[in-house]
Amino acid sequence: MKSVKIKSPATIANLVCGFDVLGMALNDPQDVMQVTLSKEPGIRIQHNDIYNLPVIPEKNVAGVALLELIKELDNENGFDIVIEKHIKPGSGLGSSAASAAGVVVAANHLLGNIFSKEDLVRFAMAGEKLASGVKHADNISPCIYGGVTLIRSIFPLDIIPLPAPPMYVAVVHPQIEVKTSDAREILRKEVLLKDAIKQWGNIAGLVAGFMQNDYGLISRSLEDVIIEPVRSILIPGFDEVKKKCAAAGALGGGIAGSGPSIFMLCKEENVAKDVELIMKGIYDSIGLAYHSYVTTINNKGITIV
Amino acid sequence: MKSVKIKSPATIANLVCGFDVLGMALNDPQDVMQVTLSKEPGIRIQHNDIYNLPVIPEKNVAGVALLELIKELDNENGFDIVIEKHIKPGSGLGSSAASAAGVVVAANHLLGNIFSKEDLVRFAMAGEKLASGVKHADNISPCIYGGVTLIRSIFPLDIIPLPAPPMYVAVVHPQIEVKTSDAREILRKEVLLKDAIKQWGNIAGLVAGFMQNDYGLISRSLEDVIIEPVRSILIPGFDEVKKKCAAAGALGGGIAGSGPSIFMLCKEENVAKDVELIMKGIYDSIGLAYHSYVTTINNKGITIV
Repeated sequence: MKSVKIKSPATIANLVCGFDVLGMALNDPQDVMQVTLSKEPGIRIQHNDIYNLPVIPEKNVAGVALLELIKELDNENGFDIVIEKHIKPGSGLGSSAASAAGVVVAANHLLGNIFSKEDLVRFAMAGEKLASGVKHADNISPCIYGGVTLIRSIFPLDIIPLPAPPMYVAVVHPQIEVKTSDAREILRKEVLLKDAIKQWGNIAGLVAGFMQNDYGLISRSLEDVIIEPVRSILIPGFDEVKKKCAAAGALGGGIAGSGPSIFMLCKEENVAKDVELIMKGIYDSIGLAYHSYVTTINNKGITIV
Repeated sequence: MKSVKIKSPATIANLVCGFDVLGMALNDPQDVMQVTLSKEPGIRIQHNDIYNLPVIPEKNVAGVALLELIKELDNENGFDIVIEKHIKPGSGLGSSAASAAGVVVAANHLLGNIFSKEDLVRFAMAGEKLASGVKHADNISPCIYGGVTLIRSIFPLDIIPLPAPPMYVAVVHPQIEVKTSDAREILRKEVLLKDAIKQWGNIAGLVAGFMQNDYGLISRSLEDVIIEPVRSILIPGFDEVKKKCAAAGALGGGIAGSGPSIFMLCKEENVAKDVELIMKGIYDSIGLAYHSYVTTINNKGITIV
């Protein structure tokens, strides 16, 4: 039977001032998935990794995403899925989105690309709903489209891929657990109008900065006065990381997704490497285990291997 | 003595989802000002119009703006100002900004352009403070820079001129009074986070739409879920104008500044003319006096005549 192997990238949602609307794809890490079209109806999932994720389709984010796609097919095909997860679940780097988006992109390829990218985002959102309780697309969209994407609206879905200049991304993942549901619950339902104005001034500046390759403007706009002050208290060392990385020349950054990973955007590779060293130093001195690395923006999204 | 005549355009601040941060300059109407450098220190203001505005410099928006500029001079020059106002005060179309920005641009020209545009915005904001009690720059910036400008931040001042495709602007000014201070007071100090998210998704979409000449995206993004629902109750006929103009093909629009003028952006001139007719029809049937017209985006800002 027809089979395809894909790579599905890590993504950063809630990109600083772009809470719930702005996401970015990374070149590392990437999940690997092998999806095979089968005459036997149904979905069979196998996980070739250490994470012990559920393999019952209805309880697996890739499974539910694929079930959404299958609903719109008029045939009885089934799928065999082998997932090799490299994006650690719970890292804040879009692990569930990579599974959900990866499987529907792979299935669509096997079916002769009958669905649009927007359709695929719609299917994959079912996986996000399973993972976090909320349909959101700011991991899935950059995962599928690559680069930076704006999700102006979910209902109706309105995805705008944004050009952005090359950037290096230093990431540190302190090994603590932050549940997406907890990270959502601590947010206030109301915010000050004056803070909201600051935030929409910043996201407007960030979009303009990305589109004009204006690193200075990008840097000035990378400020989140609403979500970060609340959520960062869940992440030990956050303020120190941010302050020291900015002093070392990072453009700016913040919490990846709902955490606990922290990312910093940099114009130059050597700055990103310095920034990673700073991150290491801080978590070494706190005595908290962590994983850190430097990567770049992924402009391709999910790729067929 | 040296003298200069300038034209200073009307502007629309609070551009739909860009409350407090996004403004646009119009080709009509424009104030005309004659500014003359004098050896006699001090400022003398004459108003050649029907609006009976104060001529004491400390009480005149152009006067206080120019006083700010003079503070930074190391000579004893004075200025004679003749203002011919065509932008009706209280229309929501940046009448005070046109005076404040116009006079400092003219003075700077007479002084050999010793100040930057950003300096001029800073001086002119003193006029806005006098007029509305609050320093804001979303009328002054497009007035000076032309086109559409983003004011990402006031302290420190960060102005980003944004490219935008050609558009026609239909404007109706119902002849009622909406005080800027009242329009500010009725706003809630807190807003729902979910509305704020919608708003920053929209402004991000609007900026991307402007920069990519994507009229469809511009149209979808021209939505204000925070300010307009509150302020529009001060403007009779607002909902009907908006609904019928959208149905006639306008891209979208809203309240100009803090009102009471309403504007609608259109891609085609004939649509803008239809939209103006709709506006006329609505205020004729309400029985409220109004002034309406169609103009275009002014990309030059203040010009030397």
